[in-house]
Amino acid sequence: MKASILGLYIVTCSDPAHGVGHLDMARAALQGGADAVQLRDKEAGGRELLCRAEEISRLLSRSEGECLFLVNDRVDVALASGAHGVHLGQDDLPAGAARRLLGAQRILGVSASTVEEALAACGEGADYLGVGPVFATPTKPDAGMPIGLEGLRMIREAVDIPIVAIGGIDAANAAQVLEAGADGIAVISAVSAAPDMLEAVRRLRLIVDAHRKER
Amino acid sequence: MKASILGLYIVTCSDPAHGVGHLDMARAALQGGADAVQLRDKEAGGRELLCRAEEISRLLSRSEGECLFLVNDRVDVALASGAHGVHLGQDDLPAGAARRLLGAQRILGVSASTVEEALAACGEGADYLGVGPVFATPTKPDAGMPIGLEGLRMIREAVDIPIVAIGGIDAANAAQVLEAGADGIAVISAVSAAPDMLEAVRRLRLIVDAHRKER
Repeated sequence: MKASILGLYIVTCSDPAHGVGHLDMARAALQGGADAVQLRDKEAGGRELLCRAEEISRLLSRSEGECLFLVNDRVDVALASGAHGVHLGQDDLPAGAARRLLGAQRILGVSASTVEEALAACGEGADYLGVGPVFATPTKPDAGMPIGLEGLRMIREAVDIPIVAIGGIDAANAAQVLEAGADGIAVISAVSAAPDMLEAVRRLRLIVDAHRKER
Repeated sequence: MKASILGLYIVTCSDPAHGVGHLDMARAALQGGADAVQLRDKEAGGRELLCRAEEISRLLSRSEGECLFLVNDRVDVALASGAHGVHLGQDDLPAGAARRLLGAQRILGVSASTVEEALAACGEGADYLGVGPVFATPTKPDAGMPIGLEGLRMIREAVDIPIVAIGGIDAANAAQVLEAGADGIAVISAVSAAPDMLEAVRRLRLIVDAHRKER
């Protein structure tokens, strides 16, 4: 399963204060060597979301690298846009229902903040877990209490599928998170709020690569 | 195509002030002889929406009547719940993309308020149109300017597929709407805000049936 290479995972956002849009973030992710881009836009209707997804899909298909493209929440938009898969939160479609719609080949990621949620997602066919919030995060104020490195370790011990840690992760704490057992790191504001998004992605890439060499 | 029998079409809502939920409306629709129920819940996440859709799907499958079940907006939820089809607004997935996901057999309805939108939907594979708002409506304050009976007539002249008129329709004006060329009427508050929902559905059913006999 391709999810095993999810070392650096960029979740898009729209951040007008920094003049950043979803496509800009996807472009920086791609150029900076990210392993995956997740389009996350909870405000857009289906039409607008599909339009963005198709733009990102085209962008990635024109590139030579291997960057996976995942759509948050909407299985229908993921399928219609030719994305590699979908990422589901706990309030989104249940993983089992999504798996049946996606088929066996497409990638299914599920957010989990507890061991129970992690085990349930595995049982329903998730390919990887988005685990967090590890630290407090300004991007998702509704994301719940941080689970900390200890919460991440507990989920790491409970499941075998790849774990991408998310929530308040940046260049300063990324190594700790990887040492705690995450296979990869997912970031939003560490890129969107950076003065130079491409530089931010490259810096995170180096941290992930350095950790992999050490192991 | 089964959409040709869309004479009385109930769109669900949740109306806590009247103690009304989506499933209650679906039950009244079914018992009162409606031809179709559309689950419309723009607030619910995918998980909650699928749960509601499965409840309504089970309710309808246990009944002897032939009531179609459509899910608003979410093609993935429609597919996962075994609904007969989906209804799309102009901000939802484009009809063509939805048709590819749904396949040829499932029903695809599209909202249209202009002749241009109506023709585009036909070209993209819509089975029926939801045309309106015909009159001002309290249920969808964002529904746009009423198109009136004249707007309905213009769309009627432009397309051949079934038209379900929507927007401010009740027992007092339903006959006018059918006379203007709608094949059916869709209602929300005419049922949800009625003192007796079942009685309201039955009354609308009689109006639709009386109009069909006259033709």
